[in-house]
Amino acid sequence: MAQFNTIEFKDGVLKLIDQRKLPLSFEIFECKNYREVDFAIKDMVVRGAPAIGVTAAYGVYLAALEYKNLTKEEFLKEVLRACDILYVSRPTAVNLMWAINRMRDLINTLKEDSIDKICDAIKDEADKIAKEDENINKKIAEHGNNIIPQNARILTHCNTGALATSAYGTALGVIREAHYSGKNIFVYADETRPRLQGARLTAFELVKEKIPAKLIPDNAAATLIRDGKVDVIIVGADRIALNGDTANKIGTFMLSVIAKVYNVPFYIAAPTSTIDFNIESGKEIVIEERDSREVTHIEGIRIAPEGIDVYNPAFDVTPNENITGIITEKGIITKPFRENILKLKL
Amino acid sequence: MAQFNTIEFKDGVLKLIDQRKLPLSFEIFECKNYREVDFAIKDMVVRGAPAIGVTAAYGVYLAALEYKNLTKEEFLKEVLRACDILYVSRPTAVNLMWAINRMRDLINTLKEDSIDKICDAIKDEADKIAKEDENINKKIAEHGNNIIPQNARILTHCNTGALATSAYGTALGVIREAHYSGKNIFVYADETRPRLQGARLTAFELVKEKIPAKLIPDNAAATLIRDGKVDVIIVGADRIALNGDTANKIGTFMLSVIAKVYNVPFYIAAPTSTIDFNIESGKEIVIEERDSREVTHIEGIRIAPEGIDVYNPAFDVTPNENITGIITEKGIITKPFRENILKLKL
Repeated sequence: MAQFNTIEFKDGVLKLIDQRKLPLSFEIFECKNYREVDFAIKDMVVRGAPAIGVTAAYGVYLAALEYKNLTKEEFLKEVLRACDILYVSRPTAVNLMWAINRMRDLINTLKEDSIDKICDAIKDEADKIAKEDENINKKIAEHGNNIIPQNARILTHCNTGALATSAYGTALGVIREAHYSGKNIFVYADETRPRLQGARLTAFELVKEKIPAKLIPDNAAATLIRDGKVDVIIVGADRIALNGDTANKIGTFMLSVIAKVYNVPFYIAAPTSTIDFNIESGKEIVIEERDSREVTHIEGIRIAPEGIDVYNPAFDVTPNENITGIITEKGIITKPFRENILKLKL
Repeated sequence: MAQFNTIEFKDGVLKLIDQRKLPLSFEIFECKNYREVDFAIKDMVVRGAPAIGVTAAYGVYLAALEYKNLTKEEFLKEVLRACDILYVSRPTAVNLMWAINRMRDLINTLKEDSIDKICDAIKDEADKIAKEDENINKKIAEHGNNIIPQNARILTHCNTGALATSAYGTALGVIREAHYSGKNIFVYADETRPRLQGARLTAFELVKEKIPAKLIPDNAAATLIRDGKVDVIIVGADRIALNGDTANKIGTFMLSVIAKVYNVPFYIAAPTSTIDFNIESGKEIVIEERDSREVTHIEGIRIAPEGIDVYNPAFDVTPNENITGIITEKGIITKPFRENILKLKL
């Protein structure tokens, strides 16, 4: 377990570690209604696919509390409208849609019950999603540790730690588990431009847990991989297609190509809720393009000249042939991915 | 020609555009003695292999002016000592060593002459190196333009423009020439972490000359290349080995691997003075490791947590098999590189 609570619901308030401020300051961002939750997801106060899912679930609960004094019909209408708004707060994270769909299904199942009962059920469901996420991460970590050799030098990208989930982490959860099980690992953390989640967040978690590591510019990864200084690469996922194609933070695809060329194992670590059974391949994944200021400004300071256009995709898609395996809470999925992913549905 | 003088010697002062300040402010850094030149090279007031060579040559002239009232013996000793100091001001740029060696040879040839005559000859030689660099860049641009198709979408890395040379540029010189010859090109400029020379300098030059372009995070290049949105990649070089292996800004090697996998032509543009005939391959190139603050801080602001270690190599080595051709002032060198590079020596 990490030494902080990324997401905590207490006294009617959703408390999030403000990840825009890390590592320079540790501040809690409080959401008192679902609109603040929508903002927190959009503006990346909270990020990481599993953490977004849990946050959105509590957002639905905040909407339920807000509208509990309306008529039942109005209440249901408003809460389902909040679901719709939260559903589109970030376009790529499938866990968000999955969490909101669970809430919608729950509300539709309970719509004949009293408002109080529905509210309580929504709270229980949000707590359950959070708790499930924690248990899932723990299992991902345990399964993933099986592929980490003694003295492994592990490269990771972006932040997939306790900050990206409700506890422990996915790819960084595997790294934590390997470290605490005494494998004498060493981590290379990509800084992960443009938002620098590696430099800001992964480095923060690694320092806090005293895991031996070096932060590197994303541009330095290829040389380390070629020179045999990386034994395994583990990254997270925002969305996984049926065939195993994986959308993840921009830069992941590049790493996967270098890994394939130089025969370094390349693993995705993600809960099965990240798998989108509705899409056959990565071709169907629409990539979110984010604000050009993420590239032209850092900490509010302009670094690029006025007048320059920017292309700033948030994610890229790694094709299944570049992926060694997908580490999930149900075990490690290997090729053929489509066949083995479909078995999960049985 | 660019619309600014990167390096200008006037009234006994070497005037450099302070590239640490671009694009936010346009300031001239004045060097009145060779120690200030040494600082300017070390601290990257001036950068880019050809520009460093020209700057160092004027640095030797500043040393000559400073010591011209000493005895001949003392004068020669001090000026050659300044040569030694400037020679090691940056470790990887072979043009620096080449320019200083030209100065040393000149001084040794003239050592029986008067101090005044030696000083004048040093000034003439520095001017000649600058003028030669300008002519060489113009020729590189013309030769390079032959490989640029109509409507080409060109990806480049780091800054190799007028700011990296005494005028015009190498890889960016080719891009300028293609633009002005009416080829309707489009440029993707890598921002080039950690020092962001693409965002700060290349974007500055592209905007100033109204060349259609987008700035991208380095992490976005691989997807553009795979998706067929890049027709050709052109980058500069800091040092080229006899077999064609090329040291250039960190991130170049990564691009070269992606380009090879997806069959996109990958060109180096550099003067033949960048070729180090003394080294057989890139294995002999020692890679400069730079200050970790380049990664942990931006504009003086800390972005990574206290206590995190950093690996920050300035360059990487692209193996010859990933290079389509080397565009020089003498034409485009193609495979077999060793054979064709050796022909240049005849």
